[in-house]
Amino acid sequence: MSGPGLLRVPLGAIAAGVIALPPEAASYVVRVHRLREGDRFVVFDPELGVEAEATLESIGRRGAEARIDAPRPAALRPGRRVTWIQAVGKGDKMDAVVRDATELGATRIIPAISARSVARPAEEKSQRWRRIAIEAARQCGRGDAPRVEAPMSLAAALAEAGAAPSTEGGALGMCLDPYAETPLGARLAALSPGMEAAFAVGPEGGFTPEELGMCAALGFERVRLGALTLRTETVCAAALGALIAVSDARAG
Amino acid sequence: MSGPGLLRVPLGAIAAGVIALPPEAASYVVRVHRLREGDRFVVFDPELGVEAEATLESIGRRGAEARIDAPRPAALRPGRRVTWIQAVGKGDKMDAVVRDATELGATRIIPAISARSVARPAEEKSQRWRRIAIEAARQCGRGDAPRVEAPMSLAAALAEAGAAPSTEGGALGMCLDPYAETPLGARLAALSPGMEAAFAVGPEGGFTPEELGMCAALGFERVRLGALTLRTETVCAAALGALIAVSDARAG
Repeated sequence: MSGPGLLRVPLGAIAAGVIALPPEAASYVVRVHRLREGDRFVVFDPELGVEAEATLESIGRRGAEARIDAPRPAALRPGRRVTWIQAVGKGDKMDAVVRDATELGATRIIPAISARSVARPAEEKSQRWRRIAIEAARQCGRGDAPRVEAPMSLAAALAEAGAAPSTEGGALGMCLDPYAETPLGARLAALSPGMEAAFAVGPEGGFTPEELGMCAALGFERVRLGALTLRTETVCAAALGALIAVSDARAG
Repeated sequence: MSGPGLLRVPLGAIAAGVIALPPEAASYVVRVHRLREGDRFVVFDPELGVEAEATLESIGRRGAEARIDAPRPAALRPGRRVTWIQAVGKGDKMDAVVRDATELGATRIIPAISARSVARPAEEKSQRWRRIAIEAARQCGRGDAPRVEAPMSLAAALAEAGAAPSTEGGALGMCLDPYAETPLGARLAALSPGMEAAFAVGPEGGFTPEELGMCAALGFERVRLGALTLRTETVCAAALGALIAVSDARAG
């Protein structure tokens, strides 16, 4: 499903005035979407969560110029901070997780290296995941993109999320594990309106017992989503959908 | 993540005794998983939700024999009837929806032809989706597989789900639509413990206004999951994850 209304174009450093569009944005607007002079579109800065309407002013051989209206905070931004820690596994599953996490309101994604991760991802991978997050934000109408951290050890990722019991105003941490006793829905009941949520999910094969112990020590309580064993790439959409619905059910 | 314990093998008509395994099951047990004589595994009938432990008795040139223990109702079966109506769109998105729906407890999947569906799927497609559902059930440890209906018109699918206000003991119907006012979480609050849930989701581009009207008339209330526009293939995992968590939160 794609939203109605104006084409959305990611752009950095938005300010009012007439500007030459950067080559990538110009090509996207003129060649891919065939906008013409006078057409309106929206530019958004996925890092700052700022957006502005814009008018395509002129198309030349070397590029395109646009008139940018006054910037404003983006209309659609997640209302809650949500950190998604995903242990990196095989293949391109992380791509799918970044897309799902972006559509479903995560504000930070941390690729983590765990014992059963197949390999440490190259630094270029993070650049790729950042681009995927920006494109997913564009598609789903979101005015910011989640911050995608560089891959780090699971220990560093868990500490970074700030869910440890000693952290004041810290995040509610949850570690998804099919063998946990506590249902995710019960844990989510402890989430107050402005509180940050943080999730940790293992690769294929899950976390090792030592890693589960580390999760617990750092405030990530083991929870299960249903009784069945989900594929690691299914967990993100299911858990973030659950977070949204439980928050809405309690607000309503 | 893959569950621990014994290899699970789908098999029809399970009864106690020694049987020659059908060629597909024999190949799966002996060649793919290299079980040896005396090894234990589990057979399950995805249609009836029945399972039994089994022992590989002999491996011969022509196949393999197994001793089947007494059958019992499968340990893991969804506790609630859930119908997922998915308007068929482009590419292999339906494959992903069938996998997600199976892992997250749908008991019936209805591929629907809607105005913006690209093409009517061939009958072979249903066979393919049934095989995918059985394989997903095997992987996630589920003792039954959702019933995958043959593709039908959206009108027929909605009627089949039995969510119309006039249906006694009918399903709670929900039509996912990013422009709906009601959050999914609020609608799920109306779901009583044993009540069936039914979801309808459009293809890329969503349902037409006429189709949304038909959904409403047949008891499928328009609901949104968050404020962003989800891809049609993300909706299934997010909404079924929400259903599980809201049910668990209320039970807890």
